[in-house]
Amino acid sequence: MDVAKSISEGLARNVISAKFNGTTVETTTPLTTDGSLILYTWNNDEGKKAFWHSTSHVMAQALEELYPGVKLTIGPAINNGFYYDVDFGEHSISEKDFPTIENKMLEIARGKHDYKMRAVTKADALAYYKNQNNEFKVELIENLEDGTITFCDHDTFTDLCRGGHIPNTGIIKAVKLLNVAGAYWRGDENKPQLTRIYGISFPKQKELKEYLELLEEAKKRDHRKLGKELELFTFSQKVGQGLPLWLPKGAALRERLEQFLKKAQQKAGYEQVVSPHIGQKELYVTSGHYAKYGADSFQPIHTPAEGEEFLLKPMNCPHHCEIYNSKPWSYKELPKRFAEFGTVYRYEQSGELHGLTRVRGFTQDDAHIFCTPEQLDEEFRNVIDLVLYVFGSLGFENFTAQVSLRDPENPDKYIGSDENWEKAETAIINAAKEKGLNYVVETGEAAFYGPKLDFMVKDALGRSWQLGTIQVDYNLPERFDLTYKGSDDKLHRPVMIHRAPFGSMERFVAILLEHTGGNFPIWLMPEQCIILSLSEKYEKYAENVLNLLENHEIRALVDNRSETMGKKIRDAETQKLPYMLIVGENEAKEQTVSVRKHGGEDLGTMTIEAFADLIKTEINSILKPFK
Amino acid sequence: MDVAKSISEGLARNVISAKFNGTTVETTTPLTTDGSLILYTWNNDEGKKAFWHSTSHVMAQALEELYPGVKLTIGPAINNGFYYDVDFGEHSISEKDFPTIENKMLEIARGKHDYKMRAVTKADALAYYKNQNNEFKVELIENLEDGTITFCDHDTFTDLCRGGHIPNTGIIKAVKLLNVAGAYWRGDENKPQLTRIYGISFPKQKELKEYLELLEEAKKRDHRKLGKELELFTFSQKVGQGLPLWLPKGAALRERLEQFLKKAQQKAGYEQVVSPHIGQKELYVTSGHYAKYGADSFQPIHTPAEGEEFLLKPMNCPHHCEIYNSKPWSYKELPKRFAEFGTVYRYEQSGELHGLTRVRGFTQDDAHIFCTPEQLDEEFRNVIDLVLYVFGSLGFENFTAQVSLRDPENPDKYIGSDENWEKAETAIINAAKEKGLNYVVETGEAAFYGPKLDFMVKDALGRSWQLGTIQVDYNLPERFDLTYKGSDDKLHRPVMIHRAPFGSMERFVAILLEHTGGNFPIWLMPEQCIILSLSEKYEKYAENVLNLLENHEIRALVDNRSETMGKKIRDAETQKLPYMLIVGENEAKEQTVSVRKHGGEDLGTMTIEAFADLIKTEINSILKPFK
Repeated sequence: MDVAKSISEGLARNVISAKFNGTTVETTTPLTTDGSLILYTWNNDEGKKAFWHSTSHVMAQALEELYPGVKLTIGPAINNGFYYDVDFGEHSISEKDFPTIENKMLEIARGKHDYKMRAVTKADALAYYKNQNNEFKVELIENLEDGTITFCDHDTFTDLCRGGHIPNTGIIKAVKLLNVAGAYWRGDENKPQLTRIYGISFPKQKELKEYLELLEEAKKRDHRKLGKELELFTFSQKVGQGLPLWLPKGAALRERLEQFLKKAQQKAGYEQVVSPHIGQKELYVTSGHYAKYGADSFQPIHTPAEGEEFLLKPMNCPHHCEIYNSKPWSYKELPKRFAEFGTVYRYEQSGELHGLTRVRGFTQDDAHIFCTPEQLDEEFRNVIDLVLYVFGSLGFENFTAQVSLRDPENPDKYIGSDENWEKAETAIINAAKEKGLNYVVETGEAAFYGPKLDFMVKDALGRSWQLGTIQVDYNLPERFDLTYKGSDDKLHRPVMIHRAPFGSMERFVAILLEHTGGNFPIWLMPEQCIILSLSEKYEKYAENVLNLLENHEIRALVDNRSETMGKKIRDAETQKLPYMLIVGENEAKEQTVSVRKHGGEDLGTMTIEAFADLIKTEINSILKPFK
Repeated sequence: MDVAKSISEGLARNVISAKFNGTTVETTTPLTTDGSLILYTWNNDEGKKAFWHSTSHVMAQALEELYPGVKLTIGPAINNGFYYDVDFGEHSISEKDFPTIENKMLEIARGKHDYKMRAVTKADALAYYKNQNNEFKVELIENLEDGTITFCDHDTFTDLCRGGHIPNTGIIKAVKLLNVAGAYWRGDENKPQLTRIYGISFPKQKELKEYLELLEEAKKRDHRKLGKELELFTFSQKVGQGLPLWLPKGAALRERLEQFLKKAQQKAGYEQVVSPHIGQKELYVTSGHYAKYGADSFQPIHTPAEGEEFLLKPMNCPHHCEIYNSKPWSYKELPKRFAEFGTVYRYEQSGELHGLTRVRGFTQDDAHIFCTPEQLDEEFRNVIDLVLYVFGSLGFENFTAQVSLRDPENPDKYIGSDENWEKAETAIINAAKEKGLNYVVETGEAAFYGPKLDFMVKDALGRSWQLGTIQVDYNLPERFDLTYKGSDDKLHRPVMIHRAPFGSMERFVAILLEHTGGNFPIWLMPEQCIILSLSEKYEKYAENVLNLLENHEIRALVDNRSETMGKKIRDAETQKLPYMLIVGENEAKEQTVSVRKHGGEDLGTMTIEAFADLIKTEINSILKPFK
């Protein structure tokens, strides 16, 4: 805090957390050596973490005061807020107790208590919690080394704690408990069940309000909810969890996305291939995947005779290596770019599954580029172009990139020559610069087989999603003994690039649903408009309009139900239909439609041709041809 | 023979085989009771079978005369010809011995020996072959019942034989031995190895000549050979046998076929869905597939935790039933037609695998129609329309159909009410009639779950292939408890139709390759034309033409190699390119191309637009829109 003050009063007011030489410290920790200090405010993830972790202490104190005898266990900060796992003993607790707890927490916070860390001996620490009959903390302490144990005090409350707090409870101005759930001690179902309370806190009441609104909006946009409402996909217990079934509207949406990317990829010189969804175990022994993931994956498929063993394919690259290996290549024929919408299967524990974002089977918009080291530069730039084209056509305007490089201290960790790594890393950074990407470089974050570039998009609610990855690979060409004949007539190793702009169709559609709330770019919409007849007298005209629109390749529906126009419009709004075409006496006479936009805007009366032009203009404004 | 003579002298000359009351008899067998007699000539499959079986006796006699001490085992007729498995003892035999054997066979045949059957006692039969030291025939006879054993004599030769011969060796006018291979006695690799000689014979020399030409042409058109030459698909030992990898040109061809069918299906009211390639074992227990095929299939996939069991899907129907079951339906919403290019996996023994026609993983152009019993009629007619549209667009003009009905004697064998079967069978027959199909009705050939209609196409070499099937199913709706609410507000069972016009993409492409010899209908060709530059001076113009053709959506290649025009044309012929566009000084000046058709026809010089029109006209002549 003294350092902050020495920089500016404003900074000192805002500093809530710090790191010294890479270790989290308190803002009050005395600095006794030279070193590197980072100060965090609420605007940093580290600052928020300290804020929420400190709030969990306040909640713990409130619980002890309200429910005497409760036993505290652990209470960390998480991505959005914090939780505390508590053994409530004879007490039981539900959401209706939240306001009481929240009020007590705010009362404590208003006391403006400092957080103070102190070292304790193992013996003292054990004695303290044995005295409280808290076998959980005792177990935690027993696993710690004497000399490393610290307690944190604020007000009358003390907790076993490694540190990382805000200076004072006073800056916690808004608190909201979000959820109560069961949790096993140490996540082990054979151990006692505890109660987990989730909460979040903010330095300003306004920020809490905005957060709760965002939460409300996120709930509405939950892709699992929208997927059901819009009839895009479903799951069946009989088919199996984590295995989506795409319903007609979802399958059509997916097909449009696939055709969109196929078209762009064709222009970019990719060639589609098709490979099976299984491969012999030997294939994955060769690729190294079996040694690394075999035990945690779907287990081998045996044949009734002949003793063969197959695996569900967890990735398409080994198959594409075998396609490359099906004939000899000359440098003149490279790069080869093999693309496949390849469905892969990866085992996830059922507790980890979540809608379309965490599944057991998904279709990657995969491609593998086999090129000479000299071509890497241009190929990387071309792939970035394609990724940016995909983001632009789908309305993702806000994204950043991360370049992951080797750790120069540990050259032995990596496969491939220094020279090639140098080339690839330079290629990636140059390409990122040249394409004007907003990127950060993370040293030491590369995979052992090559450097990579990942894209993170921010959705309409400000949430970040990892989407799109471009990865250089020196490993598989080695393992599959891939070669090409160079201009020197000798055999050389090609470099491989893995890339997937969408990532997977499942995850991408989920993110797109949450980003757009189901209001997809119009070229993607299952139905682009609905024709609403004012009464049964205009049913026939409505059908006529439908046929005319189909000739214009516009996807339309007719609502000829004998409902009021108000009801028809409301239903069309729920279905997120971008345009409603109302047809009654005038429209039928004049061969026109009255156009209402989703959300309410009245565009007036126009001919079918004018409406078709309007749709086409809207499509062309977002969906431009690639290059 | 007497009956034949009583009908006409001409018939008597041609009768070579007969059945009496369903049992194969000799043409000389005395008829001592009333009964039903069928007479066969060379034009019937039964006639050919007798002809070839009788020829195998002649070959056996020739072998005994040429290689004293050989031991005969069995010598049946097969689909095209016959074979005999022989223990040659100290003799060894190869293809270069074939002319000698053929000449000996023709010499015997010219002796015009009658085939004469006679009954022998088991004791006499055993004694006959023990005397010859033929342990194989002895083993065969030991397994026969006394009183049922017959020998057949002709000339000096005698064989153990159940019968079914032509009257006389004299009508065997042409003989060709085709192949020699090893074969285990009784197909058991622990038993002695024998030598199998394959042959074929004809009543006319001209027919043999035609057959050998056909065989030669079939070899050239072998889809495995063409698939390699045209770079359509490949196999990898590492990926696994029977698991095709589709190379870029093959994948593009497949995509064109899929888009073609998707377009027609969309017009026909189908909706695409997408389902995973695995399902829980329980899914197939419900469908009944597990009980029926589980032990002979790819074995279950276990998970590393949670004890789940999955199976590779052998068919798409259970998944589609679950999609149907994801919401309640009203009769007003039916029929629902769920279509999917669904890749399924079925275990086949490695010895059974053959190119793309017998594989372990294949993609069905599958769809399931869920309809009311009243809708079956129209649905069936619509499906036939679609199948005929597919055949027409792909140049299959020669096909027949088979309607498979219940066995009325065994009503208990079938699931579903009498009334529904009646309805479905009538629907199929009426549809087949109305659509003018050339069909046969096979009573008792229906599956236990419903009647069906299969299509057989004849390819350009006159070979028959089963392609396209339409099947009614009363079983799965029952097992998956599928329902819809009828106009009476009560729940009813829908009927299900399985159908696949192509059958599978793999098999269909194989047949199309063998049918067309790689000269696909032009809308399907990987490349529709190639631009051949006369010298490097016209390279640029050739590239210009390429771009112009791309604007017309014509798939073209450029050959700018510094080779002679003769060489370029020869290479284009090998690649089966339908059109060659030669460009030199005149063409560049006049902005034209000189067009040469695959096979040699010169179409003269024309503008790019005229050539594009020519291609479009050719496409439109075969590829008409559906309905």
